[in-house]
Amino acid sequence: MAGSTFGNIFKITTWGESHGKGIGVVVDGCPAGLSINEEMIQAYLNRRKPGQTKYATPRKENDTVSILSGVFEGKTTGTPISLVVMNETQRSFDYSEIATYYRPGHADYTFDSKYGFRDYRGGGRSSGRETIGRVAGGAIAALILKELGIEVFAYTKSIGEVTIDYSQCKKENMQLSPLYMPDLNASAKAEDLLMAAMQEHDSVGGVIECIVSNVPAGIGDPVFEKLDANLAKAIMSIGAVKGFEIGDGFRCATKKGSQNNDPFHIENGNIMKLSNHAGGILGGISDGSEIVLRAAIKATPSIMRTQQTINKYEENIDVSIKGRHDPVIVPRAVVVVEAMTAITVLDMMLSNMTSKLSGIKEFYKKTK
Amino acid sequence: MAGSTFGNIFKITTWGESHGKGIGVVVDGCPAGLSINEEMIQAYLNRRKPGQTKYATPRKENDTVSILSGVFEGKTTGTPISLVVMNETQRSFDYSEIATYYRPGHADYTFDSKYGFRDYRGGGRSSGRETIGRVAGGAIAALILKELGIEVFAYTKSIGEVTIDYSQCKKENMQLSPLYMPDLNASAKAEDLLMAAMQEHDSVGGVIECIVSNVPAGIGDPVFEKLDANLAKAIMSIGAVKGFEIGDGFRCATKKGSQNNDPFHIENGNIMKLSNHAGGILGGISDGSEIVLRAAIKATPSIMRTQQTINKYEENIDVSIKGRHDPVIVPRAVVVVEAMTAITVLDMMLSNMTSKLSGIKEFYKKTK
Amino acid sequence: MAGSTFGNIFKITTWGESHGKGIGVVVDGCPAGLSINEEMIQAYLNRRKPGQTKYATPRKENDTVSILSGVFEGKTTGTPISLVVMNETQRSFDYSEIATYYRPGHADYTFDSKYGFRDYRGGGRSSGRETIGRVAGGAIAALILKELGIEVFAYTKSIGEVTIDYSQCKKENMQLSPLYMPDLNASAKAEDLLMAAMQEHDSVGGVIECIVSNVPAGIGDPVFEKLDANLAKAIMSIGAVKGFEIGDGFRCATKKGSQNNDPFHIENGNIMKLSNHAGGILGGISDGSEIVLRAAIKATPSIMRTQQTINKYEENIDVSIKGRHDPVIVPRAVVVVEAMTAITVLDMMLSNMTSKLSGIKEFYKKTK
Amino acid sequence: MAGSTFGNIFKITTWGESHGKGIGVVVDGCPAGLSINEEMIQAYLNRRKPGQTKYATPRKENDTVSILSGVFEGKTTGTPISLVVMNETQRSFDYSEIATYYRPGHADYTFDSKYGFRDYRGGGRSSGRETIGRVAGGAIAALILKELGIEVFAYTKSIGEVTIDYSQCKKENMQLSPLYMPDLNASAKAEDLLMAAMQEHDSVGGVIECIVSNVPAGIGDPVFEKLDANLAKAIMSIGAVKGFEIGDGFRCATKKGSQNNDPFHIENGNIMKLSNHAGGILGGISDGSEIVLRAAIKATPSIMRTQQTINKYEENIDVSIKGRHDPVIVPRAVVVVEAMTAITVLDMMLSNMTSKLSGIKEFYKKTK
Repeated sequence: MAGSTFGNIFKITTWGESHGKGIGVVVDGCPAGLSINEEMIQAYLNRRKPGQTKYATPRKENDTVSILSGVFEGKTTGTPISLVVMNETQRSFDYSEIATYYRPGHADYTFDSKYGFRDYRGGGRSSGRETIGRVAGGAIAALILKELGIEVFAYTKSIGEVTIDYSQCKKENMQLSPLYMPDLNASAKAEDLLMAAMQEHDSVGGVIECIVSNVPAGIGDPVFEKLDANLAKAIMSIGAVKGFEIGDGFRCATKKGSQNNDPFHIENGNIMKLSNHAGGILGGISDGSEIVLRAAIKATPSIMRTQQTINKYEENIDVSIKGRHDPVIVPRAVVVVEAMTAITVLDMMLSNMTSKLSGIKEFYKKTK
Repeated sequence: MAGSTFGNIFKITTWGESHGKGIGVVVDGCPAGLSINEEMIQAYLNRRKPGQTKYATPRKENDTVSILSGVFEGKTTGTPISLVVMNETQRSFDYSEIATYYRPGHADYTFDSKYGFRDYRGGGRSSGRETIGRVAGGAIAALILKELGIEVFAYTKSIGEVTIDYSQCKKENMQLSPLYMPDLNASAKAEDLLMAAMQEHDSVGGVIECIVSNVPAGIGDPVFEKLDANLAKAIMSIGAVKGFEIGDGFRCATKKGSQNNDPFHIENGNIMKLSNHAGGILGGISDGSEIVLRAAIKATPSIMRTQQTINKYEENIDVSIKGRHDPVIVPRAVVVVEAMTAITVLDMMLSNMTSKLSGIKEFYKKTK
Repeated sequence: MAGSTFGNIFKITTWGESHGKGIGVVVDGCPAGLSINEEMIQAYLNRRKPGQTKYATPRKENDTVSILSGVFEGKTTGTPISLVVMNETQRSFDYSEIATYYRPGHADYTFDSKYGFRDYRGGGRSSGRETIGRVAGGAIAALILKELGIEVFAYTKSIGEVTIDYSQCKKENMQLSPLYMPDLNASAKAEDLLMAAMQEHDSVGGVIECIVSNVPAGIGDPVFEKLDANLAKAIMSIGAVKGFEIGDGFRCATKKGSQNNDPFHIENGNIMKLSNHAGGILGGISDGSEIVLRAAIKATPSIMRTQQTINKYEENIDVSIKGRHDPVIVPRAVVVVEAMTAITVLDMMLSNMTSKLSGIKEFYKKTK
Repeated sequence: MAGSTFGNIFKITTWGESHGKGIGVVVDGCPAGLSINEEMIQAYLNRRKPGQTKYATPRKENDTVSILSGVFEGKTTGTPISLVVMNETQRSFDYSEIATYYRPGHADYTFDSKYGFRDYRGGGRSSGRETIGRVAGGAIAALILKELGIEVFAYTKSIGEVTIDYSQCKKENMQLSPLYMPDLNASAKAEDLLMAAMQEHDSVGGVIECIVSNVPAGIGDPVFEKLDANLAKAIMSIGAVKGFEIGDGFRCATKKGSQNNDPFHIENGNIMKLSNHAGGILGGISDGSEIVLRAAIKATPSIMRTQQTINKYEENIDVSIKGRHDPVIVPRAVVVVEAMTAITVLDMMLSNMTSKLSGIKEFYKKTK
């Protein structure tokens, strides 16, 4: 498998390395007739841009997106949409040292094992910049979901030990937090924690939660293409993610059936559940409740602290990784989680349109 | 997406409902020349069979597998292998009542939402019996991996609050535990916990861990087809799994970079890591260490305790689910986790064979 | 690629060898709610059964199909439909001689080259019996197309030099011809030609034409997934097919643009074309006219005439292939062409449902 | 299906419209370690460039390719290769008239039917410029095949009624013919024929033949992924192709088995066939002979001659298509046929590497 394509009907194919000429994505299978322009996509990309706060690398990258195809007179045409962000500034950093050893926690060794060598400049294809294509493609998916009345919303649930309870937060506060953490007290504590880590030349991990509202019941397939299985793949495919949960996730393991089952209830003709331990998915198919998922993000592996590793001469050495690195990956990954979730949910909604013969007959009757 | 196929090169397509005529799998893309027979596959199926212990449903199901194609004179031919388990006994249980309401924690409501109706006998396609096809296909994958020197091993890590530390266990003890828990003291405690839950007409969840040994470095793809992303999908596609972790998983979220990075080290010419927080995968590609993953399994949703739900007349009702149900899903799911892991690892190893031009040239030089 | 799966949304996976325990197909992605039973599928299978006329092998094969899953109370459930034809009679023919040499025109040598050995009994997986799975799956596709008002109809266009002009035929006459050739005079001539070939221990080729009526305009994708490209793959994947044409096909090569273009015309508000050289497809997308395709079928390669070949001891030898073989493949392949065409057209119609945002919005508005 | 991706392991995804900002392709799954640069790809693109001879449109398009990713220090890295050709010159042609009606023989009507509207500038996505991405991707495939000793070679077999016998030609002469027809006498006649057609404001069709030499026996899969089935899809997916043949193709239909079967023969330890009616493929798998295929290409549909059609006001009108159009598509399509053939053969060779367990074991033994 080539590995750079995600999705079955709404499909993104990403390309580009950290220090190549550019980074991009081809979005194929986008339905015709969506109003779209570069500003709409740029708004998503800006959320992952570095240099926004002191907790992100101060590198200046404009990351300006261009639409090269698939849009005519302001609307998608149904043909592939090519989106490109050119790498404007020639990076001056000298990578010759990094080229000689394997950074712990990075993909240097595994790339060399797989391909025989690697593009070592800034991590090459395994750089965080690879997510630009995901976010640009995810922006389009999110815009389509919005047309269907569906919202995808992610936020920083925890940084290190600082965790928040979203049910006690105002969603709007997220924009006020440099860490995208909607509980501003907790956000301030997390900032302190980050400052301390930076002083120790160290880095911190955390958790992102994503909530999808208004997905109709019936989306997802029963066996291998379960909605949660596809969400798991989507989220685990983001670099630095080490765990995935749907609904109560690992907390289910210590709960009884009577505690974990969500009772169905009907009120004023609306079917609902009295709780949502399941996170909106039963048997791999959406149940009409909010879909709730979480991703565990490891601490940034590039740290200035001295670490042991080996070099290409197969010697054990000590290294201290220089350069401008985020002390935490979580805040910039929030929009990436949103993007991958949007693509997955949209793709399965499109796939779901052929589940009933009656729906197909209705569709083609209307077409004529 | 049809949804009943898993894998890209080594590919399984499963079919069958709990109470249909049979359950089966077509394994396509199996390389030619593997020695195989029905006993080898049966050995895997027997590990998920019900009626083995008092903690599993006492239903008698022989679940005898037949090979219908793809094997000639004891060896796989490279063509699809069709494996079938016929449902021998006509089930006498009356499902007419269950047909009228939505069981909490089950896929009844979501199937109806998706398809307009459902095969309500024993859960139909969302029954645990669906995993028969996975295990039969996984048995073949595991046999091929064995030929390559790779072992896939799963066990029960926790039942409810009872958790074990595998590093302190003898692997062989797993066979002595009715719960497949290799710490026999913990296993006994977990049995007590299960007995208590059964008396309360309730059920219990747990965690399964799976370890893959001897995978060479370099397996997996850098972006969407990361080895861990595919493992996540494989495992989350098993019914009742609500969370997935690789390596330290969610514990990474509270660790510093300096604690989480695994130092590379070389000794006697062998490259290794001094720790394995990453669970054997860096940047989506295997690093030569053991691959370690975990699945969170929810408690059996079918419980005799009274629960609230709605019926098809859209009335709020109370139900108590009769029938013989396992008080815990975990032990019987151990072999399913092993099967899905084996298929995923094998499939990515096959896919990896084309990653270097030099490997391709070598292959075709030898062929002539 | 494993190679035994066809289709993207409506997907068939076939398995089975000529002399294994059985032959079958898993149909995945079939929409829920189609009324179906074994008789409906059997009717298609009977059209490819041997022993029907003197121009087909006199082997008696009942080829009785069983539905093992995916149908509940007479309707498809949306889950995979497993269809099986068990090989009832143990074949007494001795294949030990055929095992020692490569039959000209057969896949014996190529299978050995690919897999290292082969199931030589009756051709194994490359036998014509492999098409049983295609026809069973195609029967379901055709039934769905019928619900959408679409008909797929194939017939024998030529046997050797005897060719008919379908526009001069009565469609119903096809049933009266043992060769499925609706021009009964031509059919009689073709029978004579076949008798002569049989006496010479030889075999004959021919052409099958397939016509799909009432497909709405707009089906198919612009680039690689053109409707005619997928039809070409579908038809060329049938054993013994050596050429494929859409519309005027190879005759286009000698025509001027002014002769080959079909003028659009409107009458009483209906858009139509004044001719159909294009065979109903422009730019890979259906134009609302009849879709017309043709397949060139080679003569049966198994002939009693003496032929040169080599044996497994790498000696040049002469062989005469014994056994009961059809002197012509064409008539029995008619229903196979129909089946593959039906699957392809249906699959692309399902795929087409997501081409416009307006259609998606309409669909999900209705769902709620 | 999104429809802009071709190939399973070696995979191209193309994008771009005739008059958008650019045209491009992402090549994913290219093995690491291939020496490559822009000149190598440009050489292929130049063969399809317009303005080369008087029989091609005199439009000046430089079509200069840039490599944006996937190559480091002159070698492919195994990650996606993004190739872009920017549309340099702003086209001045006024498309407002063409926007109002459906050109006969073009995809205008079918695009509108599918998507609700279309990018009418120069045919949008259905323009011949779409093939730039195919040729750029095919160039890389051809370079890899060359490393494996395999050559893909296409030429113009016929223009209108002028047909050549390749076995009587010098291959090198192809470069001397403005029509890529290696029989220079025939080429001159075809030029006369084209001049006549141009004077009549008409256009001409033809046939391209492609020969692949040195493919080892054993490539291709037995059922749906037959090598010839995939070649058929590859070739039929090229705009204007209306027919496909392998080996003797439609001529098989009138031949006896004894005429059509190719006898196997062994000489000096080499297995060969005494003829090649099969075109190098038996049962969907290569047999070690030359692979020979043909494509029927229709006449350019854009002609200045008056044609009937309808406009968007649903009126019957007469049109004469202005603009600079090739009087024949065939010569510029030769390299496109080569490109699609190269991608298909390479992809199936990569896929074939997992067909035998012994080959897999050998591969992984060497890896360690």
